[in-house]
Amino acid sequence: MKSSWGENITYSLFGESHGVGIGMTLHGIPAGIALNLEEIKKDMARRRPGQSDMTTPRDEADAFEILSGFFNGYTTGAPLTMFIHNTNQRSRDYSKVKTMMRPSHADYAAYVKYSGYNDYRGGGHFSGRLTAPVVFAGSVAKQLLLQKGISIGAHILSIGEIEDDKFGDVNVELLNALRTEHIPLINKNLHDQMTEAVLNAKADHDSVGGVVEACAINLPVGVGEPVFRSLESVISSLMFSIPGVKGVEFGLGFEASKLKGSFTNDPIYYEGDRVKTKTNNNGGITGGISNGMPIVVRTAFKPTATIGKKQSMIDVCQKEDIKESIEGRHDPCIVPRAVPVVEAMLAMGILELYMDYEKHKGWCKDE
Amino acid sequence: MKSSWGENITYSLFGESHGVGIGMTLHGIPAGIALNLEEIKKDMARRRPGQSDMTTPRDEADAFEILSGFFNGYTTGAPLTMFIHNTNQRSRDYSKVKTMMRPSHADYAAYVKYSGYNDYRGGGHFSGRLTAPVVFAGSVAKQLLLQKGISIGAHILSIGEIEDDKFGDVNVELLNALRTEHIPLINKNLHDQMTEAVLNAKADHDSVGGVVEACAINLPVGVGEPVFRSLESVISSLMFSIPGVKGVEFGLGFEASKLKGSFTNDPIYYEGDRVKTKTNNNGGITGGISNGMPIVVRTAFKPTATIGKKQSMIDVCQKEDIKESIEGRHDPCIVPRAVPVVEAMLAMGILELYMDYEKHKGWCKDE
Amino acid sequence: MKSSWGENITYSLFGESHGVGIGMTLHGIPAGIALNLEEIKKDMARRRPGQSDMTTPRDEADAFEILSGFFNGYTTGAPLTMFIHNTNQRSRDYSKVKTMMRPSHADYAAYVKYSGYNDYRGGGHFSGRLTAPVVFAGSVAKQLLLQKGISIGAHILSIGEIEDDKFGDVNVELLNALRTEHIPLINKNLHDQMTEAVLNAKADHDSVGGVVEACAINLPVGVGEPVFRSLESVISSLMFSIPGVKGVEFGLGFEASKLKGSFTNDPIYYEGDRVKTKTNNNGGITGGISNGMPIVVRTAFKPTATIGKKQSMIDVCQKEDIKESIEGRHDPCIVPRAVPVVEAMLAMGILELYMDYEKHKGWCKDE
Amino acid sequence: MKSSWGENITYSLFGESHGVGIGMTLHGIPAGIALNLEEIKKDMARRRPGQSDMTTPRDEADAFEILSGFFNGYTTGAPLTMFIHNTNQRSRDYSKVKTMMRPSHADYAAYVKYSGYNDYRGGGHFSGRLTAPVVFAGSVAKQLLLQKGISIGAHILSIGEIEDDKFGDVNVELLNALRTEHIPLINKNLHDQMTEAVLNAKADHDSVGGVVEACAINLPVGVGEPVFRSLESVISSLMFSIPGVKGVEFGLGFEASKLKGSFTNDPIYYEGDRVKTKTNNNGGITGGISNGMPIVVRTAFKPTATIGKKQSMIDVCQKEDIKESIEGRHDPCIVPRAVPVVEAMLAMGILELYMDYEKHKGWCKDE
Repeated sequence: MKSSWGENITYSLFGESHGVGIGMTLHGIPAGIALNLEEIKKDMARRRPGQSDMTTPRDEADAFEILSGFFNGYTTGAPLTMFIHNTNQRSRDYSKVKTMMRPSHADYAAYVKYSGYNDYRGGGHFSGRLTAPVVFAGSVAKQLLLQKGISIGAHILSIGEIEDDKFGDVNVELLNALRTEHIPLINKNLHDQMTEAVLNAKADHDSVGGVVEACAINLPVGVGEPVFRSLESVISSLMFSIPGVKGVEFGLGFEASKLKGSFTNDPIYYEGDRVKTKTNNNGGITGGISNGMPIVVRTAFKPTATIGKKQSMIDVCQKEDIKESIEGRHDPCIVPRAVPVVEAMLAMGILELYMDYEKHKGWCKDE
Repeated sequence: MKSSWGENITYSLFGESHGVGIGMTLHGIPAGIALNLEEIKKDMARRRPGQSDMTTPRDEADAFEILSGFFNGYTTGAPLTMFIHNTNQRSRDYSKVKTMMRPSHADYAAYVKYSGYNDYRGGGHFSGRLTAPVVFAGSVAKQLLLQKGISIGAHILSIGEIEDDKFGDVNVELLNALRTEHIPLINKNLHDQMTEAVLNAKADHDSVGGVVEACAINLPVGVGEPVFRSLESVISSLMFSIPGVKGVEFGLGFEASKLKGSFTNDPIYYEGDRVKTKTNNNGGITGGISNGMPIVVRTAFKPTATIGKKQSMIDVCQKEDIKESIEGRHDPCIVPRAVPVVEAMLAMGILELYMDYEKHKGWCKDE
Repeated sequence: MKSSWGENITYSLFGESHGVGIGMTLHGIPAGIALNLEEIKKDMARRRPGQSDMTTPRDEADAFEILSGFFNGYTTGAPLTMFIHNTNQRSRDYSKVKTMMRPSHADYAAYVKYSGYNDYRGGGHFSGRLTAPVVFAGSVAKQLLLQKGISIGAHILSIGEIEDDKFGDVNVELLNALRTEHIPLINKNLHDQMTEAVLNAKADHDSVGGVVEACAINLPVGVGEPVFRSLESVISSLMFSIPGVKGVEFGLGFEASKLKGSFTNDPIYYEGDRVKTKTNNNGGITGGISNGMPIVVRTAFKPTATIGKKQSMIDVCQKEDIKESIEGRHDPCIVPRAVPVVEAMLAMGILELYMDYEKHKGWCKDE
Repeated sequence: MKSSWGENITYSLFGESHGVGIGMTLHGIPAGIALNLEEIKKDMARRRPGQSDMTTPRDEADAFEILSGFFNGYTTGAPLTMFIHNTNQRSRDYSKVKTMMRPSHADYAAYVKYSGYNDYRGGGHFSGRLTAPVVFAGSVAKQLLLQKGISIGAHILSIGEIEDDKFGDVNVELLNALRTEHIPLINKNLHDQMTEAVLNAKADHDSVGGVVEACAINLPVGVGEPVFRSLESVISSLMFSIPGVKGVEFGLGFEASKLKGSFTNDPIYYEGDRVKTKTNNNGGITGGISNGMPIVVRTAFKPTATIGKKQSMIDVCQKEDIKESIEGRHDPCIVPRAVPVVEAMLAMGILELYMDYEKHKGWCKDE
């Protein structure tokens, strides 16, 4: 299992839900960056459970320690490692969980892949808890991007059937405002409806899915590569690294497949010296490369697999079908807590390609 | 620009639409594989234009030569290079194209990124023509996977509003049969409707999008990694490397985001010794890893950006807005020709992770 | 700064000499391996200082904690992280060290590279202390290789002008015996002479260099690649990652450059069914690939840069030349402690290519 | 077999000695570079055989064609592919070569590794002929480095026992002058002695080895990384990718291992504003990073394995020992032709790390 990613910044993730702790090493962070730890904590707080009755009542303090690469308030250029000690593992009997393979979880695939040696407690390395270090990393990436004027933000586009407006004209203020909300919405009137949808699912011992829409603005034209490192390729591969994600689309996405080119093509024009498009059906990406318009990506989450209802599962020890309900604390809807994770992955992906972009500047004599 | 991908097999793509030619080097192909060149040619013929009046009348012979790594009918273990000489470039005046930035094309992003030095003729390295070597590579990957019993296939799920049935029970026969059709459909009755949708768009000097649904069967349980190299991450990054793709989803995909967990969770059970799920809403992937069910992925294509209608674009030399129609031969719908490309990318992605999977076998003493 | 290496197993190193601690994450370790922690501790003890008056009197306990990837005595398949808390940092004034650039140290190069933000205390991430996690990693790699019958060992070939015999006929017993010695030698009669050479240097407030010769036996024929991933390429890149290394050679090495082919060519012959060579001037590697003979590599260490004598150095704050002696505890000869580090790097390099080798097995139908 | 290397520029090498041809794709070359093709041809001419009676009389024209990435005299930013058609393969009977495993060649290791499917004609992908594309790549890299003021050059340090002076004070003029010589020497008086040493070996149907010393000047301080991507690690891994290389050392190299620190430490001082060292025993590299002094690396070549004398070898078909002399054209000493190959590898290695270096500039606000 390789939980390491990235060529310019390499993110090395480790840890298990109920082991000693979880953490991440970031290789390649430039020296002399005054990390704003308060901002990082704010981002991590948005992911942390227990913020409302929409989330699991598990109390994960998620207090992180920096183990390396940070000295006197600045990054040193050496690998930056953060670590979160696991503190809230209840000492309980996991022998049942060990052989009980729950539907739509990684349980069975992992059991076979690792010949039964994986740490099954709380999902081990597969746990959504591993997204906490990702949020740390994303927060660092956002601070670096902000130095170059690039801002990132996200909102809940839908929970179940309740749908927020899509991103239209986006600006820094909107993105910043969204970051202050537990249920970030463009149309704030939907707050109660969305909450209700989650609480209804919870009351039914059920769960519900949703979509997060994220956005990056002020990228220069030219970030991304035509083929295997297209902006879409890199961003989607990161989004699909988040547990529970089943779909990713850019701009018009799947809807574009139903339409005519004369409608979906974004008319291109000069606004003074700047080149813009009237619509942004391509989500800011043409030929895999940023075209100056906002990057828009939507990420679809399936309903939380862990539900209280009785379900069909199997016991791999007894080799028999069983019907069980899953005890324990879980989120009826993961989407609100997923918002900063989606932001983090978007920031990491864009930073990776932005650093490629800068790498090729300064060689051509015409520039 | 890095058009190289893959850790186990490394695919190095090169060439431009109207340059000397296009090709690919595959590093890491095992020695002693009796490549079936006829099968490769068949796959490449499915991508080639000019097969029907639904596609561009450009005649690209796409005859490939193997430059290295193949000796006496077998792979040698050395890098395998294929090359297609460009033969059908009309010598025409490209000076107009050079500064005319078309909507929804890579033109403008590439012009800025490469400071105007990119080969703009026919899209250069951005051309859909670069998918020809990808189909070669995918065909090789499919032959390798077949040695391990893994089969891959795809059909057109939709063109515009016309929708085929989704994959249900899939078997090798179905996948093989689909590969013989120019318009591969599960519900063959839709053939004429789909054709008509394309021809209508063509008649309107317009284009139309669509969705390709692909499938891989008989993967062992345990292929893929939990986080950054999940099956979804790797496959999506490859699908988004195909020009025109704007969305990728697995299993229920975006639809899952609207539903309840009690509905979307795939009940797991024993069928004799084998573990299966009653539904396959996860598209064969849980926790990023194959669970033994068919891998199902849908890839959404926007309508071809090149259309005959007059459109708003810009001239970067004159720095002015212009209104032009794009001359030349183009596809009113890229979807039929995209089917073997989607198959190829799926095969490359699965082979990459399958080789990871085998790499970790044989170490644990319990196996 | 990227301190991450390896494609099959990825080793992610972090930490600073006088920070919170040092550690490493290993990605890709197969699940179900019963790590022998006692063996790991033995290897780490060989690197630890304070074993004799030949080494620095610093007392680094080097007790490691496993933070992830290890459960109930077995690897889980998830990233394996080890961590060593720094316990013996004396709280002293580092303000002098901060701007004093010592000769033949990384000080000045690092000061410029990291714009003065690097952690200068005790060398920070450049410290030889960072080889402790490397020894851990190498010990794990050796345990994996041993499962395949491959053994690794090393001895001190020279300290200053005192030279041990080179490896001739090597067997497992010899390699194992060497691992039990603080001054591992083939010709044990040299023990006192070598010790004296080091103690003389120490008495002079000086230091002395040396060469470590390492060996791997029982590799199958066929490990390594012809060009960029030759056994020599991979192993040398790791050896040159050890602080103080200035030369690496295989087989006859530099001596071969002075000789005739009729002498250096290794005559090849059948011994029963097995193919061997009469001499091993190629150090077990031809064409970058193992040929079945022992792999032999020699690694040259410069004398420890830190010496007690007064030396010319600069102060980058005052921008002036100064003459100082370096206080503090240091090794008059790093070579004895370097032996397990060299072994570790050799094991990591061979494991990397061995996993490549296995990856390509099982595809060709003739095997 | 993976013959692909590099993260910033990725070099993808392909081809066989007696196949269709040999070539390389360079991914990541910036757009808008006016490649000087004449300089490239000059470098390639230095590697080409047949220049004197010291080299093989094989006539390899080595005329290259650029297949992609080059348009109107400039790089396009797309993958740059060069190809050399093999024209001088004599159609002869290779059936004998196929099963005859020569001493100190890759023959046997390759035969086993590739299960007998490797292209054995003329060494296939193992042939020294594959260094022709490397020289092309290195020539491109040198042109890029020259834009940043960095110059690279090399001379023959020794052939057999005849030794040239080592690099002392190096300047651009010296490096440029060396590039114009077939036998580049600092002490030109040795020309005839060296030639004689080679011709004597030739007359004896024997071969002789040697050492190439290479140098890079005007690197900024700060290029390279402390651990796995040290300048020494990267450069040595490339040098050991050249056929026949058995040793690599930097600065004093192996000699340092015999000396005291008080002698080998390079005294550091200010010359005006610039920091220099009085000696350069570290070869311009401390802590893996450039320190502003010239980078000096020595690469040891074993004698050419192919000699005319009768030697012990085996026939893997008959499974028996044989005694044969190898017919055909070969170099009695590879060293003169290796000089531009060593330069090329040095340039590629330095460019790789230089691009890392630039990547981290512009983030720290103090710069």
